[in-house]
Amino acid sequence: MEKMMRYPGYICRKTWKLGRDDPRRLIHAFKVGLSLTLVSLLYLMEPLFKGVGQNAIWAVMTVVVVLEFTAGATICKGLNRGFGTLLAACLAFLFEIIAREYGKVFRAVFIGASIFIIGASTTFLRFFPKIKKNYDYGVLIFLLTFNLITVSSYRVDDILKLAKGRIYTIAIGSGVCFLMSLFIFPNWSGEDLHNSTVTKIEGLAKAIEACVEKYLTDEESEMEIDNTSDDPIYKNYKAVLDSKSTDETLAHHASWEPRHSWHCHKFPYQQYVKLGGVLRHFGYGVVALHGCLQTEIRTPRSVRLLFKDPCIHLASEVTTALMELANSIRNRRHSSPEILTERLQQALQDLNTALKSQPRLFLGPNSPNNTSKMLAYVAATARQKLERHPSSLKPDSNPNTPTLFDRKSKGGTEAEKRVLRPTLSKLTITSLEFSEALPFAAFVALLVELVARLDRVIEEVDELGRVACFKEFKHCDEVT
Amino acid sequence: MEKMMRYPGYICRKTWKLGRDDPRRLIHAFKVGLSLTLVSLLYLMEPLFKGVGQNAIWAVMTVVVVLEFTAGATICKGLNRGFGTLLAACLAFLFEIIAREYGKVFRAVFIGASIFIIGASTTFLRFFPKIKKNYDYGVLIFLLTFNLITVSSYRVDDILKLAKGRIYTIAIGSGVCFLMSLFIFPNWSGEDLHNSTVTKIEGLAKAIEACVEKYLTDEESEMEIDNTSDDPIYKNYKAVLDSKSTDETLAHHASWEPRHSWHCHKFPYQQYVKLGGVLRHFGYGVVALHGCLQTEIRTPRSVRLLFKDPCIHLASEVTTALMELANSIRNRRHSSPEILTERLQQALQDLNTALKSQPRLFLGPNSPNNTSKMLAYVAATARQKLERHPSSLKPDSNPNTPTLFDRKSKGGTEAEKRVLRPTLSKLTITSLEFSEALPFAAFVALLVELVARLDRVIEEVDELGRVACFKEFKHCDEVT
Repeated sequence: MEKMMRYPGYICRKTWKLGRDDPRRLIHAFKVGLSLTLVSLLYLMEPLFKGVGQNAIWAVMTVVVVLEFTAGATICKGLNRGFGTLLAACLAFLFEIIAREYGKVFRAVFIGASIFIIGASTTFLRFFPKIKKNYDYGVLIFLLTFNLITVSSYRVDDILKLAKGRIYTIAIGSGVCFLMSLFIFPNWSGEDLHNSTVTKIEGLAKAIEACVEKYLTDEESEMEIDNTSDDPIYKNYKAVLDSKSTDETLAHHASWEPRHSWHCHKFPYQQYVKLGGVLRHFGYGVVALHGCLQTEIRTPRSVRLLFKDPCIHLASEVTTALMELANSIRNRRHSSPEILTERLQQALQDLNTALKSQPRLFLGPNSPNNTSKMLAYVAATARQKLERHPSSLKPDSNPNTPTLFDRKSKGGTEAEKRVLRPTLSKLTITSLEFSEALPFAAFVALLVELVARLDRVIEEVDELGRVACFKEFKHCDEVT
Repeated sequence: MEKMMRYPGYICRKTWKLGRDDPRRLIHAFKVGLSLTLVSLLYLMEPLFKGVGQNAIWAVMTVVVVLEFTAGATICKGLNRGFGTLLAACLAFLFEIIAREYGKVFRAVFIGASIFIIGASTTFLRFFPKIKKNYDYGVLIFLLTFNLITVSSYRVDDILKLAKGRIYTIAIGSGVCFLMSLFIFPNWSGEDLHNSTVTKIEGLAKAIEACVEKYLTDEESEMEIDNTSDDPIYKNYKAVLDSKSTDETLAHHASWEPRHSWHCHKFPYQQYVKLGGVLRHFGYGVVALHGCLQTEIRTPRSVRLLFKDPCIHLASEVTTALMELANSIRNRRHSSPEILTERLQQALQDLNTALKSQPRLFLGPNSPNNTSKMLAYVAATARQKLERHPSSLKPDSNPNTPTLFDRKSKGGTEAEKRVLRPTLSKLTITSLEFSEALPFAAFVALLVELVARLDRVIEEVDELGRVACFKEFKHCDEVT
């Protein structure tokens, strides 16, 4: 009984929370209510009803089905519905013209057969991945309309008038939907995609910081292994891991949205999807790092403490870099080209120094040989990269992207810096010729691996800035 | 021109491939065609048309919208549609009774207001995650039907007759859909979920084998870093990483399916989802292992070759274990309780021995102390586990699960074996007090971490076997 008394309160709190978390939901609900009332006027007001008659229900139906949360989804559904209806009507009329000549029985058989064939082939069409992704709803509506018109044509004489009336009312319904979703407090899928990208990068940054902090400072006894779902670190990167379908849906809807800002040609939804993929790949690295915390096998605290400072320094630099990337995307400006490179380099150097400062007691049977070979290899790849790098900058000759030119004008230093990073991380790792225990080595290797993956993230964010025409970076923007 | 000539050929090949890959698609297409033809008879045959009249279009509409690929999806949509329609009709009649007393203008205002309020609140309701997940379609249909009836009631006098006619035809349409999807070549979401689980485990097994093989035998020059999407290893585990939404949809539809086999009480869709989560977590480990191949920083070949055999042995044991799990799920039998444990143990031991056989030259400042502390800790946790283990087996007193009792009757050995594994992997790792280079250490650590995660997978598969009432394991089933 008491439980039942508490239930309404629970619902109220839940509702309040939903509305407060995203007030756009409330606005959307009002918009749907308003649109429905508007199309109901077709029925309720005498002069309007005289115009459209019973067909007004199709306007109501269209509004209920088509009006979605974001503008892109509404347009996608509306256009799919419109074209599906039109195509189906054309085909149905063609069949009607063919069947008209014959007797009633033949017509019935003909209609039955055509419904079977069109039904089966259209359903099979929906299994094609491309059609399923982009036009599933349109094909469904095509099938629906075709069947309705074909079947009705058997009983109704003036099928053209019927179809016309329906198409008009569907157009009215779609018009109301477009009006509502495009001009009255519009929600853009593109904006959602943009914001979710920022949130994901920030989540990753927080997760890395928390992971490293916890791994290096925790007592053995505080280990938590089981309750992954409540783990605050897990919560931070969870959204990244499962972002594929959400990202793709948002991007798909964004692709239907008209350009809604003045600063660029087209919303680069594909680049956001690509960046999302790179972030997921980065996220898997964070999962592996988090795995070091959850594993039962742990390096003793004393060893962890030895490298606490350089590791935390490196992690905080990765975090800072990610935060800078998130900020640059949020403010739609290019990211700072220097801050990331210099500091990360310093942090890697520090870790390197710390590792070297420890007594280096183990040298394998052919180790000196190996190390020198390794160094030669590293130098060779660095040289290769330097040779490749300028040419990879070259193809871009768009005069609208001065940042790239700025970068180039700074000459070799910038390119060298970019190249130095992986080389240095290579040196860092190869110089680690000792280890108290394996898990810590894995932890450091994963951390350095994250630095390498950060490169890909920076690349994709740069590319995003280029295709989305972000603002140029100014030093006053810098968050120091 | 030539391109256009080739296009139809391309389409034909694509269609052929789609049909051959999954012939159920063709069957489904035929089923839809047949169902549509069946409900069209309501229109085409004189006696039937006299019964239902123009309302027959609602049957057509229902079939187009409700008949889905799997039985679960069809039932989910059909029941949602049915209950949504019924509820909406009841509410609409209530409003109609209230409004009936008043004048025409008041009625119009009342209808407009109720449409606005119901429209807005229903739309907001769809944002509740639970409702969105389970009843989204029902709520949409509720809104649609409510509006259609309320609006029509303003112009039509005998609204009850109208509604009755529609509900009858919707029932006919739904009936045809249920018949088609449940009794004529049914596709079960539960089966799909079951099969996809098997495929995912096999994919993981193949990926691990390929990863380890490639890492330990490849020449430096053969490294491939960029083209991740074409990588055969990536293809193997890709399905696991992005499985969340697919799994949940299948499980959701499976939850609507009636029991379609005799061997158990209910399809344990939730356990499949849980197993899917654990497999994803395992998959992230495989991604990290794969990352060792893709990283630019690599341990020299000579070092990798030193530990080639034990590593490949361990990996092949993990692969065998996963394959055994996949087979056991496929054949709906419990997995072998011994084969996994003994061999894995041996492989870990081998790796341990191999690592120990190398000169152990480095001992940190307080290392002996640490090692002994570590050993003491390991022993303590092993003891704890042993104490905990029997009690964790106890709560299950269902007489239908003899396998668990078999296991218990084998006494401590089984429990001990299960416990020994993590303990041993702990020992393996802590004994690794040397390393030629960090990345290889990370590789081994990740591999051993996978063994630890395999435990979770085995646990969940065992649990699945228990709740899904799998067959008992017989030694003749064993794949040796």
